[in-house]
Amino acid sequence: MVKRLMFEKPLGMRDTLPFFYRQKAKVRKQLSEEIIAHGYSFMDTPFLEYHETVGEVSATLDQQLFKLLDQQGHTLVLRPDMTAPIARVAASQLKNSEFPLRLAYDGPVFRAQQTEGGKPAQFEQVGTELIGDHSSFGDAEVIALLVDSLKKAGLDDFVITVGHIGYVKAFFSDLLEDDDETIDRLLEYLYRKNYVGFREAVKQLSIKHDKQQALLQLLSLRGGEEIFESSRSLARNQSCMQAVNDLKQLYRLLKQHGVERYIQFDLNLISHMDYYTGILFEGYAPNLGALLCNGGRYDALLPSFQLNASATGFAIHVERLVEALNESEDNDERIGIIVDDDSFQRGMEKAKEYRKNGYSVLLQHVDQIPDVQSFKQELANTEDMTEAGGGQDE
Amino acid sequence: MVKRLMFEKPLGMRDTLPFFYRQKAKVRKQLSEEIIAHGYSFMDTPFLEYHETVGEVSATLDQQLFKLLDQQGHTLVLRPDMTAPIARVAASQLKNSEFPLRLAYDGPVFRAQQTEGGKPAQFEQVGTELIGDHSSFGDAEVIALLVDSLKKAGLDDFVITVGHIGYVKAFFSDLLEDDDETIDRLLEYLYRKNYVGFREAVKQLSIKHDKQQALLQLLSLRGGEEIFESSRSLARNQSCMQAVNDLKQLYRLLKQHGVERYIQFDLNLISHMDYYTGILFEGYAPNLGALLCNGGRYDALLPSFQLNASATGFAIHVERLVEALNESEDNDERIGIIVDDDSFQRGMEKAKEYRKNGYSVLLQHVDQIPDVQSFKQELANTEDMTEAGGGQDE
Repeated sequence: MVKRLMFEKPLGMRDTLPFFYRQKAKVRKQLSEEIIAHGYSFMDTPFLEYHETVGEVSATLDQQLFKLLDQQGHTLVLRPDMTAPIARVAASQLKNSEFPLRLAYDGPVFRAQQTEGGKPAQFEQVGTELIGDHSSFGDAEVIALLVDSLKKAGLDDFVITVGHIGYVKAFFSDLLEDDDETIDRLLEYLYRKNYVGFREAVKQLSIKHDKQQALLQLLSLRGGEEIFESSRSLARNQSCMQAVNDLKQLYRLLKQHGVERYIQFDLNLISHMDYYTGILFEGYAPNLGALLCNGGRYDALLPSFQLNASATGFAIHVERLVEALNESEDNDERIGIIVDDDSFQRGMEKAKEYRKNGYSVLLQHVDQIPDVQSFKQELANTEDMTEAGGGQDE
Repeated sequence: MVKRLMFEKPLGMRDTLPFFYRQKAKVRKQLSEEIIAHGYSFMDTPFLEYHETVGEVSATLDQQLFKLLDQQGHTLVLRPDMTAPIARVAASQLKNSEFPLRLAYDGPVFRAQQTEGGKPAQFEQVGTELIGDHSSFGDAEVIALLVDSLKKAGLDDFVITVGHIGYVKAFFSDLLEDDDETIDRLLEYLYRKNYVGFREAVKQLSIKHDKQQALLQLLSLRGGEEIFESSRSLARNQSCMQAVNDLKQLYRLLKQHGVERYIQFDLNLISHMDYYTGILFEGYAPNLGALLCNGGRYDALLPSFQLNASATGFAIHVERLVEALNESEDNDERIGIIVDDDSFQRGMEKAKEYRKNGYSVLLQHVDQIPDVQSFKQELANTEDMTEAGGGQDE
């Protein structure tokens, strides 16, 4: 064995030690309780899929896929997201279920990292998919459930920014007369949230000044419900109008759900180059320099599996949610009972009694403890039932 | 996209649909509660590891490893078991913790399948590792915890068969005068539980008749505590004697744990060609044509990570445990509330009330339901609050 790699892990791979595991398990439990309470059913799919089945339709860049060959020569991928595999299942094994379908998942997904830099190549997502509901009621349900789930997990300081891909696409299409190359370049700036680059690019376009001004004004369409009016007056065509109406209806429903204080709007929001088809959203928490959760409506994915159904959903990045919660308190409350040959039987009975009352108790023979004093210090509580310990301790 | 693969999954990969997911989640919860109650801390490791770090020391055949290359040219493997990765962590990040360490895990492991045949290439293991305790108290704790965990999950009809690799190795070594080739061949027959082949092979050995007879008598060393006496009288040397003494001490402790009715002994048991170093065990349930759980003492693994510590543990095959429990009852008790525009607000308030009382409730706008009658039939209970439904239903 090459010594250099003895304790090493591949790029972006991390261990989850007990303290972080307990925090994650707690968050995972609270999220899934809330999701189940809303009538969603958890399911799972395998970690390996055929590249041509889910790799090609997923929202992940090809270079971020972990690929391997099976013995038949097919390319397999470690699942880069859960939405595409769930679409595969919804369109096959579940296609005769009653729609709308409410499905949920909790598991790791994989994105290969090209460089050292702290970005994980494996991370856990808890998410939902509402399949077969193309109404604003569906959009509102998904966003409200996201808010309720984050709150249930203990987070209260966060913002869900909501956009509509239909608005920006129709807006560009009208102003740039279907010049797809320019449209894609501008969408890319917005996708990367590079607003300086966007401004520069717009200024260099050989289009009329008033059109340039309109393009730059798009950047101002961020804020609360007050942006509906300016969005409407900037609207270039019927599709833009429809998008604003969708957002207004959505907001009305989100108020009925009682979650409006967590909602902001941003008509520049482009979460992905060509995945979402309507409402889309991203969630952020202060002090967390990364996306906490995201989602939206993706009405084109199910049809690519030959199922004519619209869909909307969210995904929460579990490790980042744990980070955002920033709980330093450890709930390791283990009790240790230290025994010798003579007190083993009594120690075991005592341990059983504690366990019956919900305690976590380890029973340890003293002969196997290298350092009894430190061993005692590591635990919340110990009872030393050895002859040397003289019975109770600490 | 090649249509043939649109809904296909790689060899041995399976989806976990909601019904099976609920059953697994229930089992997983009960197992982990029992394991935590015994003072074990759950942790996790990444799904990808360097081949030279854990691939080479794991108990898995090389052809069963899923391998891929990273961009630096290192061979990565999808983890084939959890014991080797946990040993890596124990010997690095946790090496300054207080020993003995009690660690646990719950997650999928991967074994590539060469042929179609129903064997899964990904399956979930819940398991424990007790690191740094080389006493019979440790062996007994692990086996008793295995029994208690299976019982907690609802299984009562099962047998844990316990063997000792030290007995059979010392026995062969004495009788076959360290003829390693023959010893390995005989071990292989026992490993494959091919007793007919073992008998044939023994009969063809050019050794004295009484030695042949002794080798054949090994096969009779299976049963309850009554085999201790015959094992002792067949013992060829001090190492055999020591193994019998270990088993006797183990059984005495297992009786104190109160789990003896689940225990059988089998001195032919070879769970793996060269992984275990002492006590080892396998668990079976009737009507389950496959191993339910296994484990044992592996004192050579930690030293291969430069940590001088012995270890013992078990792993439960979660999907097989769910199969063994064979519960057909589904605990999908979802309530559906069907609303229209007018009743949406009232429906939502009703849903919140139910949820407060622990129910799982889905709120669905009637316009998005293709077939209202079948939709109602799929749920445990529905309330139709649409004007057409006229209020309550079923």
